[in-house]
Amino acid sequence: MNGDQMHALVERLYPICRSITGDGVRRTLEIVGEHLPLTVTEVPTGTEVLDWNVPKEWNIRDAYVKDLSGRRVIDFQESNLHVVGYSVPVSGTYTLEELRPRLHTLPDQPDLVPYRTSYYVETWGFCLSQNALDALGEGPYEVLIDSTLEDGSLTVAEHVVPGRLPDEVVISCHVCHPSLANDNLAGVAVAVALALKLKEPRYTYRFLFMPGTIGAITWLARNRERVHLIAAGLTLACAGDPGSLTYKRSRRGDAEIDQAVEQVLEDRPHRVLDFSPYGYDERQFCSPGFNLPFGGLTRTPYAGYPEYHTSGDNPGFVTPEAMEDTLDVLTQVVGVLEGNRTYVNLSPYGEPQLGRRGLYGSLGGRSDTKQAQMAMLWVLNLSDGEHSLLDIARRSELPFAAVERAAHALLDAGLVREKA
Amino acid sequence: MNGDQMHALVERLYPICRSITGDGVRRTLEIVGEHLPLTVTEVPTGTEVLDWNVPKEWNIRDAYVKDLSGRRVIDFQESNLHVVGYSVPVSGTYTLEELRPRLHTLPDQPDLVPYRTSYYVETWGFCLSQNALDALGEGPYEVLIDSTLEDGSLTVAEHVVPGRLPDEVVISCHVCHPSLANDNLAGVAVAVALALKLKEPRYTYRFLFMPGTIGAITWLARNRERVHLIAAGLTLACAGDPGSLTYKRSRRGDAEIDQAVEQVLEDRPHRVLDFSPYGYDERQFCSPGFNLPFGGLTRTPYAGYPEYHTSGDNPGFVTPEAMEDTLDVLTQVVGVLEGNRTYVNLSPYGEPQLGRRGLYGSLGGRSDTKQAQMAMLWVLNLSDGEHSLLDIARRSELPFAAVERAAHALLDAGLVREKA
Amino acid sequence: MNGDQMHALVERLYPICRSITGDGVRRTLEIVGEHLPLTVTEVPTGTEVLDWNVPKEWNIRDAYVKDLSGRRVIDFQESNLHVVGYSVPVSGTYTLEELRPRLHTLPDQPDLVPYRTSYYVETWGFCLSQNALDALGEGPYEVLIDSTLEDGSLTVAEHVVPGRLPDEVVISCHVCHPSLANDNLAGVAVAVALALKLKEPRYTYRFLFMPGTIGAITWLARNRERVHLIAAGLTLACAGDPGSLTYKRSRRGDAEIDQAVEQVLEDRPHRVLDFSPYGYDERQFCSPGFNLPFGGLTRTPYAGYPEYHTSGDNPGFVTPEAMEDTLDVLTQVVGVLEGNRTYVNLSPYGEPQLGRRGLYGSLGGRSDTKQAQMAMLWVLNLSDGEHSLLDIARRSELPFAAVERAAHALLDAGLVREKA
Repeated sequence: MNGDQMHALVERLYPICRSITGDGVRRTLEIVGEHLPLTVTEVPTGTEVLDWNVPKEWNIRDAYVKDLSGRRVIDFQESNLHVVGYSVPVSGTYTLEELRPRLHTLPDQPDLVPYRTSYYVETWGFCLSQNALDALGEGPYEVLIDSTLEDGSLTVAEHVVPGRLPDEVVISCHVCHPSLANDNLAGVAVAVALALKLKEPRYTYRFLFMPGTIGAITWLARNRERVHLIAAGLTLACAGDPGSLTYKRSRRGDAEIDQAVEQVLEDRPHRVLDFSPYGYDERQFCSPGFNLPFGGLTRTPYAGYPEYHTSGDNPGFVTPEAMEDTLDVLTQVVGVLEGNRTYVNLSPYGEPQLGRRGLYGSLGGRSDTKQAQMAMLWVLNLSDGEHSLLDIARRSELPFAAVERAAHALLDAGLVREKA
Repeated sequence: MNGDQMHALVERLYPICRSITGDGVRRTLEIVGEHLPLTVTEVPTGTEVLDWNVPKEWNIRDAYVKDLSGRRVIDFQESNLHVVGYSVPVSGTYTLEELRPRLHTLPDQPDLVPYRTSYYVETWGFCLSQNALDALGEGPYEVLIDSTLEDGSLTVAEHVVPGRLPDEVVISCHVCHPSLANDNLAGVAVAVALALKLKEPRYTYRFLFMPGTIGAITWLARNRERVHLIAAGLTLACAGDPGSLTYKRSRRGDAEIDQAVEQVLEDRPHRVLDFSPYGYDERQFCSPGFNLPFGGLTRTPYAGYPEYHTSGDNPGFVTPEAMEDTLDVLTQVVGVLEGNRTYVNLSPYGEPQLGRRGLYGSLGGRSDTKQAQMAMLWVLNLSDGEHSLLDIARRSELPFAAVERAAHALLDAGLVREKA
Repeated sequence: MNGDQMHALVERLYPICRSITGDGVRRTLEIVGEHLPLTVTEVPTGTEVLDWNVPKEWNIRDAYVKDLSGRRVIDFQESNLHVVGYSVPVSGTYTLEELRPRLHTLPDQPDLVPYRTSYYVETWGFCLSQNALDALGEGPYEVLIDSTLEDGSLTVAEHVVPGRLPDEVVISCHVCHPSLANDNLAGVAVAVALALKLKEPRYTYRFLFMPGTIGAITWLARNRERVHLIAAGLTLACAGDPGSLTYKRSRRGDAEIDQAVEQVLEDRPHRVLDFSPYGYDERQFCSPGFNLPFGGLTRTPYAGYPEYHTSGDNPGFVTPEAMEDTLDVLTQVVGVLEGNRTYVNLSPYGEPQLGRRGLYGSLGGRSDTKQAQMAMLWVLNLSDGEHSLLDIARRSELPFAAVERAAHALLDAGLVREKA
């Protein structure tokens, strides 16, 4: 799946009105399912999940504010951002003064419509641009929200690429945002593209497409006995904006996933942030009881761009090139995770004679020692059972790939063995 | 006690001739005792205290160098700095040449009289300005030091504010310097003011008013079996000069007192110094056998201002504002020590649902997350039994007070418990 | 041995054609043996040493490329660099075209002759300047290498200065390079000079003069049961160029030798490099099975100067002053190793009374506290059995010598004892 194909997927998913439950999520997963086989689980309203309960299911068909002439001055059909997510049904006539507390705008970005939700407090409201609000007369207005908030279920989906090991690498994307492209349709598209690239991996790869917070909590509640199998995890979001990549470390701070992503990012402009308990679902995976090795990968992080959580985050804001760049980094991270091992030098007393094994240039005295030979010397020197190839790459300041190739050459020569 | 009242106390104490023993210390403690009930202990000359012995007691009534006309060219009545502390009695006639080895001046600060003592080698001498020395004729001079150096006792005083815990916070001030205002009458005045502010604290607070070195050694010798109760300690000195605050870390370097003071100082100009075995009585409290968590708080540190140990360190050198600022920092440090706890998250798997407990803003999607909510998330995430609120404040870069408020809210909601 | 004498030794050794085996090494060791008694060991060809085997012995008497007029256009007699080290015997007639793959030059340094060897792949060749190569006609040429490559032995030599302790400090120099002055005749000369300075030391000092790599491997193989006695080690190379000193840390990174050399270098321009598994024989001593506390001392490190491994590295490139400077640093390092101890404060509760033991200035109140007194306070404070004098010097930022003097004074006063 190339950048254009990822962008096309973003555009196709964009109009759907998603929320943390409901048919918008289901329709989104159907489309993802055209690319990847998904295991979809419906968890009924009221199910206890960790400290939470699965909420009622929300669905919406239409919503508007009409003036006396019948013109929709705020229209859900035009953009699903116009309705506060999880708005209860309403039908009635209101003056502007009565409506005003329920109308959300961004005074500092007067052209943009904000994204607002109210999942756990039953209310209703509309979002619109400040300019649109300023243009409204006193009313009265006919107001309709044709929604339902009823017992139903919450939907989570998984795609698994089985590996040789039961240990898992988890990529998690939230699918609960309505018409917002970077947050998080770009993440979904890149995850799909990554899943399609994996062929007979060593680790088992699990892709999670779930609503934010409650989705992760539901999944964790249902998989509590299995999470010890998670060797590495990433939440993937904001994967398509033109900014450079940002990695947020896991709560552990120096897990293999942290080392791997930082190693890959080293060669390009990027930022690394320490863990903080805000952001995406790494919050849940890194809660102290689980403390899983989960980092977060974004381009510009949440709330870091003016279009964040507004109608400005549309498909024009995300680019094929940016999504390809994110995919490229993820592919390299997978490569590092797949290749990282700890080896034990079987000839640790002095250097083994590389020359007679064909591993060393024969003409001595030259000063342009090659990277490949340095990598072999580093692997031999640090393969005391305490250093992984990632540790060696970091310490030697050599590319991971060079270190990995050196280790394979030494393995083939019988000079190292993999640590049990 | 406000800044003006502290300054008035400094002015009242200033003329008294203090030393490491004698009536000057007793008179000083009487005046302090007008503000705070003190337990005064007299320890007889000769008592073995750790590696030391309590010295003879020194008292002085008068001292002068008179010229032939009967004019006092050096006069103890004018300033007690004019006599070397612990000078033995002397009475006789001396030429300037004979006197000169016993006359101490500051050639680089020719207007100022130095402060000199000789506690453990019996001698006598006078201190005067270089200018005054330069004006002296050849003599002869009539010289008198009407002092006594005899068996007596050393005086230490304590004021205790009992707390709910037997564990103690100790504030120690030296009271052995004669007419020197910043070193250490300002420290005494600020300590008095702090003691007056404490109301039913959690920790027990112990204020020590003692001569430097031998006083601390005597107190430690007499309290050897109790020092394990000291949870935090500070020596307080040079508390009134116009410079910014300086914190010198304990020998441990990362004790709770170190974290607390550094946290409080973060918001204002300040310096932090690593421990060194010189300075004030933290030297004794941090000797390797005790290794107590004692830091040192000063404004400009010892020997760091030109007036140090000279007649320039007079009440005009210390200001009500500076003493109030020192008191403010100490009050905040006490607040941090009182409030610091380690909590355990009782809902550590995923985030608990703060919303249904009224702890979280209900309208999602907004990017201006409040400090209070971040503080709650940080407390929940790091309350794994390994992190105190001070640790959390440091890691989150949030004010301690915000972290503490968050912890209390979570405690009230039953989401955390105090670590046993 | 002063700088001029060291330089004279370099000049005397320079013309000898050394390699990893053969009479050139033996002749070199004879000359070193005129200054120091050496124990010379011959290890026969074929002996298994760790992962290696002692190679055949190489000797050479003459070599040339002659044109038809009989003129030697490349002449071993002029410089032994002209022959690739370990070249097999050859005799025949070759055109330039046939010869060219066997002719090594430095196109970027057209005046210089490179140094090349081929120890473990049997071949032959010549080295010459690019300018000389450019001047050659098409030939044919008469080619002779009058060498032998036969069973024999490898030569290693040791000089031991016995100390009071069986624990050893090892200084290792490679002696396998032919006419190259800085690499490593300067190192040999400085090592000889250092050995001559040692008088009844505490540690036993062992000087190793061995061919690089295979020599160290041979020595390690023969001393495997004794290497645990090595308390500190240094490889010494490039000891005479005009650059500043460079210390390369041991694999451990914070061994006593690392601390000692860094302490001594602090006062002069220098560089410190982390360990890497390339360079001189610290590679072997720091292989993970041995992991000995071996650092590397050079001036400009290998491959760091344009003359490296070329005919430019001649006696004119090394200076008496540079060798004296290297010797001075080594002498100081020895001083630190000899003097470093861990003491235990016998009076750890409070400060002991230094004054009554004559260890402290008697007149108090002065602000110009002397370094000697600070050193005593630091030694007392940190002598808890966990800190060596080197640790104390580093922490206090005082010169090692001051700290050592303070410790001796405290030892004499019975205030500290050496840690068992």
